Amino acid sequence: MKLSARNVLPGKVLEVRKGATTAQVKLQLDGGAIVTAAITNEAVDELALAPGDVASAIVKASDVIIGKA
Amino acid sequence: MKLSARNVLPGKVLEVRKGATTAQVKLQLDGGAIVTAAITNEAVDELALAPGDVASAIVKASDVIIGKA
Amino acid sequence: MKLSARNVLPGKVLEVRKGATTAQVKLQLDGGAIVTAAITNEAVDELALAPGDVASAIVKASDVIIGKA
Amino acid sequence: MKLSARNVLPGKVLEVRKGATTAQVKLQLDGGAIVTAAITNEAVDELALAPGDVASAIVKASDVIIGKA
Amino acid sequence: MKLSARNVLPGKVLEVRKGATTAQVKLQLDGGAIVTAAITNEAVDELALAPGDVASAIVKASDVIIGKA
Amino acid sequence: MKLSARNVLPGKVLEVRKGATTAQVKLQLDGGAIVTAAITNEAVDELALAPGDVASAIVKASDVIIGKA
Repeated sequence: MKLSARNVLPGKVLEVRKGATTAQVKLQLDGGAIVTAAITNEAVDELALAPGDVASAIVKASDVIIGKA
Repeated sequence: MKLSARNVLPGKVLEVRKGATTAQVKLQLDGGAIVTAAITNEAVDELALAPGDVASAIVKASDVIIGKA
Repeated sequence: MKLSARNVLPGKVLEVRKGATTAQVKLQLDGGAIVTAAITNEAVDELALAPGDVASAIVKASDVIIGKA
Repeated sequence: MKLSARNVLPGKVLEVRKGATTAQVKLQLDGGAIVTAAITNEAVDELALAPGDVASAIVKASDVIIGKA
Repeated sequence: MKLSARNVLPGKVLEVRKGATTAQVKLQLDGGAIVTAAITNEAVDELALAPGDVASAIVKASDVIIGKA
Repeated sequence: MKLSARNVLPGKVLEVRKGATTAQVKLQLDGGAIVTAAITNEAVDELALAPGDVASAIVKASDVIIGKA
């Protein structure tokens, strides 16, 4: 499936921490930056997400804020 | 100002395209990936965003979807 | 690619209206409801979105508000 | 109150699962599709959300991603 | 309709600027702060939004970032 | 750092409630309104957020819905 989301950044899962309903997942992008995602525990289970998995961080362009130093 | 947003990814502005009210900005992260942001024209003007600017893509963890191949 | 997004609602594209940078796309879900999406013109072009296309509306659970009558 | 949000999809609450601060709510749209929402526990209490309630899933157009098979 | 969204901030419309598909609306909250919203032109028309209208800025808690000086 | 986000509303932290992975923070804007944010516990720790802190609620214009009575 092709996505309209402009940002599909490939990387690898570093850490998965499940909470009560919401999990926190850390991904290292191929370029080195670390991205944190808050997703449902349900999604973690369904995708069987675990450290080392090849995965992407997907972000809609309208969810990106620009900061200028 | 320190931000609660988990993802502040440093990079450089590649392209700024203003629309009628909404602009599209492309940023190259330091690791090489390109991120597209949709922000207001007003923000582009206020930050005087232009290609070559050092800038960051800021994304809240709850706006990141994980995709697994 | 499997997505962490909890809502992937299948339907068919009804209408695509491009703006200056942002397009408005209407999708009819298989159950009949109509969903409106605001995506970039760039995404419309890249996916070659046109009326009649089989497509899905994808929404992260954290972007859904509940309203109770 | 009329909302600018383009998507107000009527349905019925199927399941409410409260977490530590965040609840997960499943709604069945009138057309049959199931929508998952992540909202605060506080909202669940304030709306007294429970299975069987008539409710709507409300989503802003800018939060909808389009996926094309 | 009662909303799960935690933030329903009452105010008055100051300015409505329609774009090609997306409008920019400025609202002055009752406490004085000015809030900018990017909504569809379609929503502006449907709500017949105009300066002087009593209206609210509605924001889901998961869309609020905290900044600390 | 200057932000493209149109809404940076100054206030003071009223309450911080950490959950399993997600915290709920209440802020009183200078104009009096109370804003609720759902952020990661990790962000609460990193910003050492506590009641009485001077802080801002930051919201992208595309995350604001307008409601008209």
